[in-house]
Formats: sequence, structure tokens, C-alpha cells
Amino acid sequence: MALLIDHIGELVTNTEITRLHDAAVVTEADRIVWVGRSRDAPAADHRIDAGGRAVLPGFVDSHSHLVFAGDRAPEFAARMAGRPYTGGGIRTTVAATRAASDDELRDAAGRLRTEALRQGTTTIEIKSGYGLSVADEARSLRIARELTEETTFLGAHVVPSEYAGRVDDYVSLICGPMLRAATPYARWIDVFCERGAFEEDHARAILTVGRAAGLQVRVHANQLGHGPGVRLAVELDAASADHCTYLTDRDVEALAGGSTVATLLPGAEFSTRSPYPDARRLLDAGATVALATDCNPGSSYTSSMPFCIALAVREMGMTPAEAVWAATAGGARALRREDIGVIRPGARADLIILDAPSHLHLAYRPGVPLISHVVHNGVTL
Amino acid sequence: MALLIDHIGELVTNTEITRLHDAAVVTEADRIVWVGRSRDAPAADHRIDAGGRAVLPGFVDSHSHLVFAGDRAPEFAARMAGRPYTGGGIRTTVAATRAASDDELRDAAGRLRTEALRQGTTTIEIKSGYGLSVADEARSLRIARELTEETTFLGAHVVPSEYAGRVDDYVSLICGPMLRAATPYARWIDVFCERGAFEEDHARAILTVGRAAGLQVRVHANQLGHGPGVRLAVELDAASADHCTYLTDRDVEALAGGSTVATLLPGAEFSTRSPYPDARRLLDAGATVALATDCNPGSSYTSSMPFCIALAVREMGMTPAEAVWAATAGGARALRREDIGVIRPGARADLIILDAPSHLHLAYRPGVPLISHVVHNGVTL
Repeated sequence: MALLIDHIGELVTNTEITRLHDAAVVTEADRIVWVGRSRDAPAADHRIDAGGRAVLPGFVDSHSHLVFAGDRAPEFAARMAGRPYTGGGIRTTVAATRAASDDELRDAAGRLRTEALRQGTTTIEIKSGYGLSVADEARSLRIARELTEETTFLGAHVVPSEYAGRVDDYVSLICGPMLRAATPYARWIDVFCERGAFEEDHARAILTVGRAAGLQVRVHANQLGHGPGVRLAVELDAASADHCTYLTDRDVEALAGGSTVATLLPGAEFSTRSPYPDARRLLDAGATVALATDCNPGSSYTSSMPFCIALAVREMGMTPAEAVWAATAGGARALRREDIGVIRPGARADLIILDAPSHLHLAYRPGVPLISHVVHNGVTL
Repeated sequence: MALLIDHIGELVTNTEITRLHDAAVVTEADRIVWVGRSRDAPAADHRIDAGGRAVLPGFVDSHSHLVFAGDRAPEFAARMAGRPYTGGGIRTTVAATRAASDDELRDAAGRLRTEALRQGTTTIEIKSGYGLSVADEARSLRIARELTEETTFLGAHVVPSEYAGRVDDYVSLICGPMLRAATPYARWIDVFCERGAFEEDHARAILTVGRAAGLQVRVHANQLGHGPGVRLAVELDAASADHCTYLTDRDVEALAGGSTVATLLPGAEFSTRSPYPDARRLLDAGATVALATDCNPGSSYTSSMPFCIALAVREMGMTPAEAVWAATAGGARALRREDIGVIRPGARADLIILDAPSHLHLAYRPGVPLISHVVHNGVTL
């Protein structure tokens, strides 16, 4: 069944053409098959008249933690009243996640996935990391895999309390039985490389053994302070170094010189009242920047890519066009995907129609639900 | 027809009780008729099981400018790239508004009103101020009156270009024929009292003659710099001084000592990359604070009260409870209304069900559309 969307006021393609006006797109099954001027469009079984509105690739949220139980609203409220964010609260969610049934975890993650999809997120990466036992990490990834193909094993999120003072033992668990149990359900391996979480040597060991097991590498790096995470990510040719809030000039040069994407997560800085990463500095140096939500109950409980775009423009020196690119094509790069984040024949039929004439409105109209239609795998929601 | 909403996990009443748990509300026609525990609730014709979710009074947005034509997305993008906001852009919208037909203005304003209602705004104040001629101000207010009873005559928004250098003449026009044409459609009179807009003496003259004509007073004050606006508002017992971004200690004392509400509009600071007003300082001094969107195409094109709540918590030192109060009961005070912004028998049946267990989530989950149901005048959307 072919679908035609015509009379598109502004089509953001993320190809060489960048933007087309009075455009049309045709999809067939789960693929885009035709892009061009509205008046030249072929007929199709179904038609949506965009009526001058803007059409974009669906958002690619390359960093989320959707598999968990409970929420931490009181912790959030306390932090906003002045208590600093330390990251220690992850263990609260680990306890709730372990105590939850499969169906509870599945329902909660599924609700968040649907919430994100309604806001235009057609591809989402989902990490484990609230199980932190062999069985609970495998279970988290199994549930994540029901929702997305972009699943990430994050056994190295924090050291669980039962391993307090025995980090080496926990790293051995990750690198052995936990990795074996996770691998069937994961595409990626990730480490939270930060003081208080995992140091450089442990991170390198985990990522190296994960890669040998067939997983691809991404790294939580330089969120809470300066450190080795970003340079380690580039050294290992990770697809993405995520957070990048505290960067030295050497870190920026490394990102600009490698193929590792700098994935910025401004929802985390918003919700922890922390300084924002400097996207402008990264872009001016030639690094590739992605935007993602970091959706999780502790530090960034937003599933909204438009909100992240608005923050990136207000707080991080990005233009609206750069922010929209980072939230679509940038996310695709951070997942090493060429079939998403772009509108061209052959790409996946993932796109959104805005209730607005231009991509600018995603930053210009902050907080307003502007997603009028979502087409996901060729199916209109 | 009575409507019962039961199994409310958290009911924000804004009465002495503040919050009830496992609560229920019954509405009959356009009024709330019963509030209590879920298990004690009487039967009704219709029932919504809130399933543990939170219920709040509908948002009261006491400051918006919905009657205009065109948008100013390119101006926004340029400003985000570094050009400062001067307010001069209002004249762009005046030209577009004058050129638009009644139906174009009505459709555009109606779309924004519907957009706001879907986001939980059950009461909205709408100003004129993009007409700036006798006929166009009257027309703007006539259209606003079709959408809300809270209409505000803002002929004194800026001096239109045809009166450049003849401010006295424009003030005479406002105080004479424009006021007479506006009065049938307006409840309020407002002046943008700011350097570059209207000085103190002109503002006092306009507000005084407006009050004599039966309108009630509100003032745009101290948005772009220190000035006399806030103290003038208190002197005239205005219902609200709006913006309050630059306040001296005397201004804060005046607000705390009077009955004028300080209405803060963080969407404007977000979209003009300006410093936020200090809500904490006002609250600690004993002033009454309201939150509103300032929805307009130049400086704050958001219609989202949840977005303003999230900003108030992140940027202005408010707790989530204070921000939710300011966006509901605070807005009602800023409109001198006792029948809205509160859930108690006799109040208007304006309430929202969140897709969340607590009011905290409005700040904890920024950017996420959390409004599950809106009941407006007793009718469920």
C-alpha cells in the first residue's frame, strides 16, 4: 500500500538538498520510494494533504533508559529545593526494577515507548542498567528488544550495593556471565565511565570484551566532570560518547578527529540544574553532534525530542536547523544507521508532520505538542 | 448531567486541605458539587476512573496575546543566533494583523485557544494590542470576546509607526475614541509601561481613564529593565503586574504589601534568552505569584502552562507545588476570580486529569504532554 503526503510546505530531508518546498513524499510498505515536487507526485492508495505544514524525518532518540520500575518524583522535588544530584539514586531504581514482574516492566516501558512515538520518536535506543544482576540485565534487554532493535547492555551503569567495595568482582561478572546472558538481546555495549561509577581501565576492559562478543561500543562520558571517557570512546571508535558536558580542548579535538558522535542530553542538565554542554564549541570544531532525551527516572524523565531541541537552541548555541539535524540524522549517526534520520528513496518510512509550517517552530514554540502525524515503518499512527 | 471522577491518586484542591489522596470529585452542569473520598462518592450519570492519577484545577493563563496574524519564526531564529530582542518586532505583527480578515484572525486565535485548552488551560486572558487603531483594536477585542470573558484592551502596547514622534496624540486616541470602541468588549485595561513603550505618566493617565470607563487594571511592568511599572500597578491597585523581571527591593515590598499579583512569564525569558525573574524572592517576601504563558508571536510563542511550570521550577526557585498553585489559583487571583483555580463545591467545573500520579510530574517530566483529560465548564474534551 503506497502512501502519498503532498503539499508539504517545508520538507526537511537531511540530504544534500537539505530542505524542499511544496514537496511530496511517497512511501510503500516500510520504505520511502519517491521524493519530489508536489505537482509531480505519483498517485497512491492513501493520501495525506499536509496543507503547507512541515515534514521531517522521525526523531531518532539514541539514548534512553526505559526499562525500570517506580519513579523518583520526590527525589526530583528535593533536588530542585537545593539538594545536589550525585547519581546515587540509581540504586533506588535498581531495587524497584528487580522487585517488579516482567509484565510490570513491559507495561511501563511500553507506555513510555508509546509516549515517545506519539511525540515523533520513530527510532529509540533502550539501555539496560537497572537490573545489575545476570538475570535482571538479561530480562531488561529481552523486554527492551520487544520494543526496539537498538538495545544496549549497560551492566556497567553503577556498581550494585551487593558488590560495594568489590568493583573488580563486579567487573568480572559483567565481562563473564552477565555479558553472555545479555548478548543475545543486545546490539550495543555501554559503560558509565565517570568518577563514582567505572574508571577508565574497567571501562576499557568491559567495552573490549563486549566488542569481542559482537556488540558495538558506546560510552557515557564526561557528564559530571572532566575525565577519560570521551578519549576512551574515540580510542575504541565508539559510535557515540554520550553527555560530553565537561570537555577539554583535547576531548573536543578527539571528537572532531574521529568518527565518534558527541550525543548531548540537555534533559539531564535541565532536570539536575547543571551547566549545559557547549554544542557550539563542538560544532565549530567539526564534531558531529546528536541530541537525545536520556529518558530515565532519575536525571531526565522526559521523552520529548522537541523539548531537547528547544533547550539546545536556548542553552547550547545550536541553530534550530542544527538541532533538528542532531535529533534526526545525528541520532542515526550515533546508532551507525544510514536508513533512518533522512528522507530519500530507500530510507525507512519514518516521518512526522508538524502542526507548523517550518522546523523552526520546534524551538520557537517550546513545550507545545506540535506533532500532527507520525508515520512509523510506513504506518500512520 | 452529573460527572463523577473517582480513584484520584492526588487531588490538588488549592483549598485549606491543599491535597487529598484517593479522592473523588462530582460536577453537575458547569459547577463542582462534591469533593471527598473516593469510597464516599455519590453516583453520577457519567464516571471517569482516574486510576490513581492526579487531578488538578484547570490552568488559568492570565496573560496571552492570541489575536494576531502571521508568525515571526525567522526573527526568532535570528535572535537565537545572537541578535538582541528589542521589542521592535511588535510592529511587524501589527501590520500583518491589520491586513488580515476577521475570519483569518478568528481562525488563528481559535486554533491557539484550542491548542491551549488541550494542554489544560481552561481559562485564558486574551489581550488586544496588535491592532493599534480604533477599528482594529475593537475588532481584536470582539474576536477575543468570542473565545473568553477575560479580555484586555492593550491599545497601549507600542506606539504605532503612524504616530511616531507623536506619543501624546496616540495617548489621546487611546483615552478617547479607542477606549470607547474597546470598552464594550473588554473587562481589563493594560499598558506596556517600559522605556521604549509608555512612560509612567502616560501609563497612569491611560489606566485611570480606563478604570473610570469601567475597566479593571493590569500592567506590563519591569520586563526589560527597572522602572516605575510595578509601583504604578500597586498604586492603582491593579490586579496584576506582569513580567516583574527587574525588581528593586522597593518593588518587591510594594507587591508584598499590596493586593497586586506578580505574574511571571518565563516563556518570554526562555524565548528571548533573558534572565529569569526571581520568583523565590517574591514568595519569600510574601508577594502572590502567578505564572502565565505570554503566548504571542514575538517573544513567547508557547501556549503550554506545563512548560512554564517546569521553567519556574528549574529557573526561578519555585517548588513544583508553588508553581502549580501559581498556574492555577495564582492565575485566578491575577484575574480577581474566586470561582476558578480551585476544586471545591461551587467552583467552576474546570479540571484536568494528568497521565501521572502527582502534580510533581509537571516539572519532573518536562516537555511531555501529560494532560490526559480536560473538563471545561463541566464538559469533558
